[in-house]
This record gives sequence, C-alpha cells and structure tokens, in this order.
Amino acid sequence: MLDYAALAALSEIIRRGSFEAAAAALGVTPSAVSQRIKGLEERLGQVLIHRGPPASGTETGLRLMQHLDQVRLLETTLAASLRPTGGPAVLRLAVNADSLATWFPPVMTALPVLYDLVVDDQDHARDWLRQGQVSAAISSDPDPVPGCDALPLGAMRYLALATPDFLARHFPDGVTEAGLRAAPAITFNAKDALQSRWAQKATGRRLHLPGHLIPASEPFARAVELGLGWGMIPESIAAPALHQGRLQPLVPDLPLDVALHWHVQRAMAPALAPLTAAIRKRAAAELRP
Amino acid sequence: MLDYAALAALSEIIRRGSFEAAAAALGVTPSAVSQRIKGLEERLGQVLIHRGPPASGTETGLRLMQHLDQVRLLETTLAASLRPTGGPAVLRLAVNADSLATWFPPVMTALPVLYDLVVDDQDHARDWLRQGQVSAAISSDPDPVPGCDALPLGAMRYLALATPDFLARHFPDGVTEAGLRAAPAITFNAKDALQSRWAQKATGRRLHLPGHLIPASEPFARAVELGLGWGMIPESIAAPALHQGRLQPLVPDLPLDVALHWHVQRAMAPALAPLTAAIRKRAAAELRP
Repeated sequence: MLDYAALAALSEIIRRGSFEAAAAALGVTPSAVSQRIKGLEERLGQVLIHRGPPASGTETGLRLMQHLDQVRLLETTLAASLRPTGGPAVLRLAVNADSLATWFPPVMTALPVLYDLVVDDQDHARDWLRQGQVSAAISSDPDPVPGCDALPLGAMRYLALATPDFLARHFPDGVTEAGLRAAPAITFNAKDALQSRWAQKATGRRLHLPGHLIPASEPFARAVELGLGWGMIPESIAAPALHQGRLQPLVPDLPLDVALHWHVQRAMAPALAPLTAAIRKRAAAELRP
Repeated sequence: MLDYAALAALSEIIRRGSFEAAAAALGVTPSAVSQRIKGLEERLGQVLIHRGPPASGTETGLRLMQHLDQVRLLETTLAASLRPTGGPAVLRLAVNADSLATWFPPVMTALPVLYDLVVDDQDHARDWLRQGQVSAAISSDPDPVPGCDALPLGAMRYLALATPDFLARHFPDGVTEAGLRAAPAITFNAKDALQSRWAQKATGRRLHLPGHLIPASEPFARAVELGLGWGMIPESIAAPALHQGRLQPLVPDLPLDVALHWHVQRAMAPALAPLTAAIRKRAAAELRP
C-alpha cells in the first residue's frame, strides 16, 4: 500500500509550488513534509519533486498526484458515514481551450469537487489522459485511450475569419494559394493545425502558413478583429463581430467542424457520472450534431 | 559565426512541431533539415531538439530560436535597401494572461512582425526574459533583468469577487479567517498568489486557501460568476457583472493593485521602440497611475 500521508504532501507541494506552503496547508512542519517526500522517493527509487523554486512534480510525481485525486474522488462516492476526513476531492481534467472559453464552464457545477484544469488545444488534450495525468479529457480525438471510454459530444464549428480591411489587402481577388502563403495566419500554438486544415480544404493543397502564435482563446479572436491576421474562430465567439460586420469569412459557407469527445477513465466513470450527464446535456444544446 | 540556415531550420521545427513541416516551410528536403540540425548539435556539443513527436526545443534550442528572432528583428531596422530576404521577423514576448485578456492586444498593431506570445501569470512572465527566451515581457516584477530595462506602466486593479449566493453561503457574517479557510478560491495556476495576498490583506494573516485551478482569464471570471468559488478579477473584466449585481466584492473598497512593468532587452530596445511607445500610451489610458 502506498503511503497516503506522503502522497498528500506530494500533491500539496505540486499544487502550491513549495514545501513551506504545503506544510502550512497540511498543518505540519516543513521538515515533516520533507521527510515524507524523501521516504516516498527512497521507497520508489525515483525523484518525485523538482525542488525548484518553484517546486514542481516530475512525471512520476504528477502521476502519483493524479492517483491520489482519483482515490479521494472515489472515496466521495462511498456512503457519507464511511467518508474519511481527508482533503477535499480534486478533479484534474484536460479541456481544450475553445471549449473552456465557450460551452464548458457551466457543467463544472455538476460535481462538488475542486477542479484542477489543464488547458491544451483540442487535438492534444487527450495526450494528458494517455499519460495518466488527468481523470478525463475533452478532445477532438475519437479513439479511446486504453482503460478509458470516449463519448461523442457533437462538433464545434470554426469559421475562417478576418476583418474586411485584411481581406481587401491580402485577398483582393478572393482566397488563393499565393495569398494564403503570404497573409499572416493566427495560430493557437505550435501544435494547432486548424488553420492549415482549413487552408487545405479551401485550396486542395497542404500549405505552410506564416503566422502569429497567440495561446489564449479570446485574445486570439481579438487579434483577428484587430487585423493582425486571419484565424479559425468558434462560431459562438465570432457571432457578435460577424453580425456587426467587423469580421467576414475568407470564403462564404466553408466552415470546419471539429467533433469533440469526452474521454473518461473507466474506473472513474461512476464518480464522474453527474458531470458526464451535464456535459452530454450541454453539448447537445451548444454543439452541432 | 553561427550557421543561420541551421538556426532557421531549428526555429521552424520548434514552431511547427516536426522536421517535415519545417522542411516544407523552408522549401528543402527533410533530410537537409535533419543534417543542418545534426551539424549544429555536433558543433555545439548539445541536443537542441527533443525529437518527439511533437518535436520541441531543448533549453539551448529555445535560446537559439530566440537569438535568430532577435537577429531578424534587428535586420528589419536596417535601411530597406540592405534588408536581407530572410524569413519574416518574429517577436517572442511574455505577456501576463490578464493583460492579454484586457488592454494589451491593440498595441500589437504597432510593429509589422509576427508575434509569438508566451502567456504566464504576472509574477512569472519576467522569468522567461531572465532565461533568455523572449525579447521583452510584461510582468509585475519591478527589478530589471541584467541587460534589460524595466519601464513602470501603472497598476492593474483586482477586486475580490463572488456571486451574492456564494457570499451568503460562505460568508454569512462577512469575510472571516474561518470562512476563507473553507470557501473555495479560484486560482489561475499553482504560481498565482493574488488570492492569498488579498486574503492576507483582508485578515492580516497568511492563510492557505482551498481552491480550483483555472488557467485562462475569461473562464476564470466565468467560474466565479457560476458560483464555483471567489477570485481576484481585473476590474475591467468584472465591470459588467458588478454593474448588474451578478458579482459582489467580498469586502467593499478593498482592491488589490498590481503594478505592471515593461521589461525590454536593451539590445532590442531600438527595434521595439514603436511597440514601447504604443504600450506606454495604452497603459496610461487603461491602467491606474
């Protein structure tokens, strides 16, 4: 059996960034925290914390934190009389940035837990689950990770948009390969392939686009509205600017639909059932079938 | 002299996540890209790329990418007749998430470059500059990094807010130490100390707060509006919800002002002068003196 007092110390250090803060949160001395971690590291034969500052978890350290979260969450599903007096249940989820910026937040009220959200783009949120670092993920990848189930949620519709000025300057005769090779695109991060996929859909060719990297959903849309580049924006975020004519599609009626999936670790599915139900309901209302 | 063709390949691999995408962007074969990187790694005696997938830069690889960006940006300040036909100038900046979500985006139009933004919380954006990974940063830290200048911009005002329901449930008799120890706070990430600092200001004691981690500015504010917890929200983001009574301060007239600073590498200051001017002007209008 793992030493759960040591796991609790490990988890507090990673979430608070220092041994001192973890000790204060647990109501023990820093040297007690330090000894618990040292003991755990010796028993497992691995370093679990990069000492920093700030202190952070190694890969194994992060997996152990995730394990503790899951054990605590499973404990909350026991009868109240059996519930131990451990720390609050924390649920670590990977959510794609555009879901978090649009339809996702209200579903979080479905479970009385503390959320620890990991934000990534839709094509990579699932990687966190595969690495055992989260209990569930929202991702565009349809294939279940071993030990997990994937539930289709519907599609998020993206539109390729820019300002009227930007279109007049870079695409005076409509969208062309040459225009796309020269006009700055805005990309969420190095892993975000949405702009390239749309350009391929529009031209039939795989193009390499010059561009900005703006890793935050609303600032991304604002940069497009400021004329810094064109970019793929979820229709719900773009609606007001489209309606007011501040943004226009690069090509009419050429959206890109990204199907989203809710991936859940099978062992956690019962504890997460209320959240899964809320996600299904909200996705049915907010995403395209 | 460094091999700049190899640096260009390195930079494309890091920004695009694969050797193949870099090769296509540069119009050369993947094996040519591979050889350039291998040559550079052998000459420097260090690994520059984690092969992935996705491929990513090592610490030295990221520094070399940043060096290439700076050389290219400096080249754009040469007379147009001297300007080489290399890749587009890329400017890598660290911006705190709340600035990016509020006053920052319009200033980006001041320079004709491609932006590569790194987003972190205000207390840590400067670390990216210290590590030599960006040319400039917006941060709460007033101390200049060696080789850089720091320009004070004014303060961003944060308010400690929650919904009326949340306040009635967790703080029926006003904000107390016991209430703050039990009520969930929302925190941007493990490094974000705003909530703790405000709690210390309100109670005179350093408290350890239970809480959610939501690393995105607007979703953070939405989670507060959904009643998931209390949190520190920039006044400009909170204004509509405050005005409509959906959010209320935990304690009236107890804001937390965070002074922001524009840190610029001295060697880059001339090339960044138009951006610096735009930032000063906008900060003077949008931040508190």
